[in-house]
Amino acid sequence: MPVQPRTPPGVLELLPPQQLAFQRMLDTIRRGFERFGFLPVETPVFELTDVLLTKSGGETEKQVYFVQSTGARKQADDGKLPELALRFDLTVPLARYVAEHEAKLNFPFRRYQIQRVYRGERAQKGRYREFYQCDIDVVGKDALPLAYDAEIPAVIYGVFRELAFGPFTIFLNNRKLLRGLLAAFDIADERKDSVLHEIDRLGKQPRGEIEARLAGEGFGLDPGRVTELFDLITGHAGDSGAAFAALRTFDRPNPTFTEGLDELQRVYDGTLALGVPPQALQLNLAIVRGLDYYTGSIYETLLDEHPRLGSICSGGRYENLAGHYTKSKLPGVGISIGATRLFSQMLDMNLIGEGRGAVAHVLVLAVEPAMATEYAQLATQLRGAGLNVEVYGGDDKLGKQFKYADRSKIPLALLYGSREKAEGVVNVKDMREGAATKQHVVPLTELAQAVARLLG
Amino acid sequence: MPVQPRTPPGVLELLPPQQLAFQRMLDTIRRGFERFGFLPVETPVFELTDVLLTKSGGETEKQVYFVQSTGARKQADDGKLPELALRFDLTVPLARYVAEHEAKLNFPFRRYQIQRVYRGERAQKGRYREFYQCDIDVVGKDALPLAYDAEIPAVIYGVFRELAFGPFTIFLNNRKLLRGLLAAFDIADERKDSVLHEIDRLGKQPRGEIEARLAGEGFGLDPGRVTELFDLITGHAGDSGAAFAALRTFDRPNPTFTEGLDELQRVYDGTLALGVPPQALQLNLAIVRGLDYYTGSIYETLLDEHPRLGSICSGGRYENLAGHYTKSKLPGVGISIGATRLFSQMLDMNLIGEGRGAVAHVLVLAVEPAMATEYAQLATQLRGAGLNVEVYGGDDKLGKQFKYADRSKIPLALLYGSREKAEGVVNVKDMREGAATKQHVVPLTELAQAVARLLG
Repeated sequence: MPVQPRTPPGVLELLPPQQLAFQRMLDTIRRGFERFGFLPVETPVFELTDVLLTKSGGETEKQVYFVQSTGARKQADDGKLPELALRFDLTVPLARYVAEHEAKLNFPFRRYQIQRVYRGERAQKGRYREFYQCDIDVVGKDALPLAYDAEIPAVIYGVFRELAFGPFTIFLNNRKLLRGLLAAFDIADERKDSVLHEIDRLGKQPRGEIEARLAGEGFGLDPGRVTELFDLITGHAGDSGAAFAALRTFDRPNPTFTEGLDELQRVYDGTLALGVPPQALQLNLAIVRGLDYYTGSIYETLLDEHPRLGSICSGGRYENLAGHYTKSKLPGVGISIGATRLFSQMLDMNLIGEGRGAVAHVLVLAVEPAMATEYAQLATQLRGAGLNVEVYGGDDKLGKQFKYADRSKIPLALLYGSREKAEGVVNVKDMREGAATKQHVVPLTELAQAVARLLG
Repeated sequence: MPVQPRTPPGVLELLPPQQLAFQRMLDTIRRGFERFGFLPVETPVFELTDVLLTKSGGETEKQVYFVQSTGARKQADDGKLPELALRFDLTVPLARYVAEHEAKLNFPFRRYQIQRVYRGERAQKGRYREFYQCDIDVVGKDALPLAYDAEIPAVIYGVFRELAFGPFTIFLNNRKLLRGLLAAFDIADERKDSVLHEIDRLGKQPRGEIEARLAGEGFGLDPGRVTELFDLITGHAGDSGAAFAALRTFDRPNPTFTEGLDELQRVYDGTLALGVPPQALQLNLAIVRGLDYYTGSIYETLLDEHPRLGSICSGGRYENLAGHYTKSKLPGVGISIGATRLFSQMLDMNLIGEGRGAVAHVLVLAVEPAMATEYAQLATQLRGAGLNVEVYGGDDKLGKQFKYADRSKIPLALLYGSREKAEGVVNVKDMREGAATKQHVVPLTELAQAVARLLG
């Protein structure tokens, strides 16, 4: 009895036309990263467990997949963790990579990495156990100039413009500015993280509810101060100029606040200087991100017409990348696109065009089996001209061959029989829907040019 | 105390310049596959264990890596295998994919797959636990015309010509021909596999030793017959025409022999018709490959100047891809390039050029910190012209900036200070060794063209 062939749950396995579209997306992302000179890095899918889990709290470890060969499984019933584990992000492998190869890298080190990561999530719609992340980071040695913080949103702007998923906005914030602001409102240090958590909910929950919670028992903040704080945070949404102006005239600045505001202004201005139009870039003080990791700039990206998807590309500035692996201080700034989730959402919303559907531009039909050598030569000639070409193998009836061409979505089919051969022509059939003319009789000597012209 | 950052043993992790070269290699392979219209497929890194291990014997299973999340580990101390396992090749996932998605695929189904596979090998030089395979297969429904067997070597020829690792030869054989030949020499069915094993050693061990074994106790074949057989197999090495002629005049043909010989001749002729030059294609009866899998055409590929590497690309025709998963008969033909091993061997032999070394074509130096906006605009302009551009962030001394450019191997550095600005020019410094002229003063308005011209 055959075994039922099944894809494991929690992964996105695509049929070839969608896989082609996904590959196009990854290629676009890669090209956008390379446009800014980022260098490719790939790391192994697994890391040594003790290296991977240095800093993990319980939550991360629960989601980690461990890897063991059969031999190792038999020996290791002693309760120890297996030696290897699948990476759950690209940040820990980057930290390990930079620390391990530090002497051989050139700082500031600019790397991109487009690989899959693994999380033992409970299987549910939109949660993947295997998914692509597309990361860029610039890592400095001892220090990293703020100029790089302005480059990150410029890279992302270029990528999403090319991806053409519709209008989008990159939101900027700064953790120092936020911390300074909370201090100015006399929010005690031990409460700052939970207040930031509440701020992060702005835009997702009604402002009134959040204000009520902050003024309620748990926090006990003065309602008037909370309103004042929230006015400052959300008051000029969509108008970065006005937001900066309001912050500049804030009447209780402290050094952290001012440092953060200066950084934010410089990153904002620097990003515009790199050609990002103001309508795609916005100051947004309600953006918080990972609480214990980012220390300066923070980024989120939203599709204007699909805000419910949440941030499709997020990141920020961190103080020290690899403190678990080296004493060198390695500050950095980076951002990540969750490509699998984004692609699957775009698929669900029918925002992924069918594209070419086929890799081949041309299918050479086997009109007369005795002419197989001629078909091979036709194909070789077209391939030499840079076209992707299939030759139909075997001697099926033409109807079946056309059906194959049609289902394959190959745009052009070549018909070349003894009559065409005698006349020195090829019959090029346009298989695309809506093609103005379906048949083109083309001189054999001009075939490649004619095909290129038809393909546009 | 920091944890020592270590790459797990048995993987090939590359520094960025080598990673760039490796990526160039994978891109070339992919382009070669697409030139023949193959469609991309990616499958998850893990499969359900019961699906992956349907047909495995003990040897395969011993090398399989199993995957388990922490939660699952705690529950499952019952001796059962974990639910998930890493793929150890791309053939089993292909079989599962085709069987699972059969109704949605278009046959003959032409797919390529470039992904990593995993084997729990003992760590030793040249053995990888994680390595890339680059596979193509054409899978038919019920039947697959022999024309596709001729296409496979043509694809491989195109790929290795582009890779430019030096001259190479694709060797062709046919399992039916071999089986027919053994039958003609009265070698009993139960001995055929072990005799084929010995034949496989021709070219790796001295012929005399192998002949002696076959004539010895274990096999007890007639020494004269063995010599006759081996003359036929190795007699015309390097001269496919003569080899075919000798086989055509073989005096004891049987139907299997003749069918195999006809197939081999048609595949050979068909491959030449696809533009593969005769010096890159050779009949070689000593090629055997996996004994229980291939049933017709067999392929191996050798670098002429590095025969010790063995076959760098092998495959063949199989009768039925997915018998473990479906009752549909799915014959196919395919071939695989072990890209990681090949790349690492090329690296060891210094056959991988440094290539560009950098992704960026141009580094804009921060000559005057006050001109950061101008540098951003210069970079944006060049990026718009399709160039990959870095801007040096911060205000390090020029000497340090040049050192970075030099170590990065970025070919061109732009110097643009207030003097250049006043004169409307940019100073382009050629950082490449042996550049005829090191400094080029270029009008700002012609910068992109000048840079493109310098890059060639």
